[in-house]
Amino acid sequence: MPKPDKPVVGFDLGGTKMLSAIAMPDNSLVGRTKKRTASDHDAEEIVKRICKSIDKSLADANLKKTDIGAIGIGCPGPVDLEKGRLQQTPNMALGGFPLRKTLESEFGVPVVLENDVNAGTYGEFCFGAAKGFRHVVGIFPGTGIGGGLVLNGQLYHGAHGGAGEIGHMIINVGGALCGCGQYGCLEAHASRLSLSRDAAALAFRGQAPSVESQAGTDLAQMRSKVLREAIDDGDKAVITLVRRAAEFLGIGMANVVNILNPEIIVLGGGLVEALPADCYLKVAERSMRQHAMPLMGKRTKVAAATLGDDAVVLGAAQLARDYLKAKDPS
Amino acid sequence: MPKPDKPVVGFDLGGTKMLSAIAMPDNSLVGRTKKRTASDHDAEEIVKRICKSIDKSLADANLKKTDIGAIGIGCPGPVDLEKGRLQQTPNMALGGFPLRKTLESEFGVPVVLENDVNAGTYGEFCFGAAKGFRHVVGIFPGTGIGGGLVLNGQLYHGAHGGAGEIGHMIINVGGALCGCGQYGCLEAHASRLSLSRDAAALAFRGQAPSVESQAGTDLAQMRSKVLREAIDDGDKAVITLVRRAAEFLGIGMANVVNILNPEIIVLGGGLVEALPADCYLKVAERSMRQHAMPLMGKRTKVAAATLGDDAVVLGAAQLARDYLKAKDPS
Repeated sequence: MPKPDKPVVGFDLGGTKMLSAIAMPDNSLVGRTKKRTASDHDAEEIVKRICKSIDKSLADANLKKTDIGAIGIGCPGPVDLEKGRLQQTPNMALGGFPLRKTLESEFGVPVVLENDVNAGTYGEFCFGAAKGFRHVVGIFPGTGIGGGLVLNGQLYHGAHGGAGEIGHMIINVGGALCGCGQYGCLEAHASRLSLSRDAAALAFRGQAPSVESQAGTDLAQMRSKVLREAIDDGDKAVITLVRRAAEFLGIGMANVVNILNPEIIVLGGGLVEALPADCYLKVAERSMRQHAMPLMGKRTKVAAATLGDDAVVLGAAQLARDYLKAKDPS
Repeated sequence: MPKPDKPVVGFDLGGTKMLSAIAMPDNSLVGRTKKRTASDHDAEEIVKRICKSIDKSLADANLKKTDIGAIGIGCPGPVDLEKGRLQQTPNMALGGFPLRKTLESEFGVPVVLENDVNAGTYGEFCFGAAKGFRHVVGIFPGTGIGGGLVLNGQLYHGAHGGAGEIGHMIINVGGALCGCGQYGCLEAHASRLSLSRDAAALAFRGQAPSVESQAGTDLAQMRSKVLREAIDDGDKAVITLVRRAAEFLGIGMANVVNILNPEIIVLGGGLVEALPADCYLKVAERSMRQHAMPLMGKRTKVAAATLGDDAVVLGAAQLARDYLKAKDPS
């Protein structure tokens, strides 16, 4: 069996959970395995869990190590593609650790590392909402706002693997404080965390009764589901808040449209999945069209991601497959 | 002589002037010809002037029409690359006119159209400040703020030829009114026109004596040279104004760095040439590094364009040469 047609491992290494699966030659996923990750795990412990997770996926799929062709891993933060390691991992002790080398000697196959949002965007490009397009921007609003770029049909990394950091685009000089230390980043005005921050303040002021009854005034409890329920319960201030965040998101999307003129923007992640489209995705889309240059804005499609939690795994697996194909084009 | 080695015509079709020249196989420019363009010229008149200008360049270079291999033209506004015509030309009656077809039948050689800022960026990439880099952003603050992208060593157009519209990135929600109708665009805070607008107000209030003595309160007279002289004369409010615009420019640059992670940003155009670097370019560079994500911001080079008025001509000529090479790779 030529190597590109072998099963490959797709892996989503997240800050709170890891997800591994085997992508078969027809791109079906088998042997899905989920494990918890914790911020106090050291590099050795994380690697041990990665290996165990892949072993379990293989066992569940009735495969041996020698049956797989390669491993693709979506990782948090920027990846040093040359050296095969993570550059910065605020919530994970892998910064600078030789992850690729370690896993390659463990499994005896090539390992491809990629930023998780890039991998997810690539997954949506290959198999999901952006299938068939060549110029794709993926935006994933969650705790932060991650972005990935597919340009001319290829994942775009820029000079040092950092391209796609859409969340830290400043759209509102002097605006809200962002986790990165700047003021007015898209992330500070449109991420889930920014919504939680403002919802907690509303609850504290007694202006969001549903939020307050669900989560009190504790920001850490204000998950997407709480916001969703508050909207369903008719918390007017929360509805206004969410629509305002979507309008900001649309301004960020418009900026990306003006700079890159993509064919399609795919929106994914927890907020997009949890919030009613007419209060969030549709508001963001309308705002994008209103703020982008008309020639480009009206031609750019906007779609919700379709692969959910599998996007990163599928994208990482396909990147592993691409690597094999590039090495052995026969 | 194989076609790619023939001399090619490079052409810069601007709103107030056109510039043509012959790029010899060693990329030296000969037969430089300049002609005025006026906003009341109709398409026929403009085409007549383009042809006359190229004819004069050929005559000055002792060449015949049959000696050249192709023509490259940098045009204002977005270009419909497929149909070979300009899409929108607020200051030129060529929108929708079949410019490529017309010139191809006039000169009997392939004609390549390109947006002028893209052509200028490509010129700086091939021959100027960004020579040797693969990921380049060109930013040209003038009446507006144009941008061009070279990604993976190739001019990037996006889906419909509109990529690179950096000037209409919204960096300041609810900020100054832009010519495009939006509020808070980079262009509305950092272009020459935005500086002229604010300098006129300063002059009117008696806060910019040098500006007032040079240009009164007439915005139309506030060219880059007036601003330069006011800085030299020590108009404090003008210095503050220019530095503030440069800081905004740096925020726009930081956004582009976060999204594209380029190796180098080339800044060109009238303002960059006219204003003292420590009041403008250096301020913009510092602001970029301050507002971009550290990993990318500190590694991105910033340089002034080196080709001046020749950038568009040289870039357009090289695009014409690239076209011939792609058609006949021998």
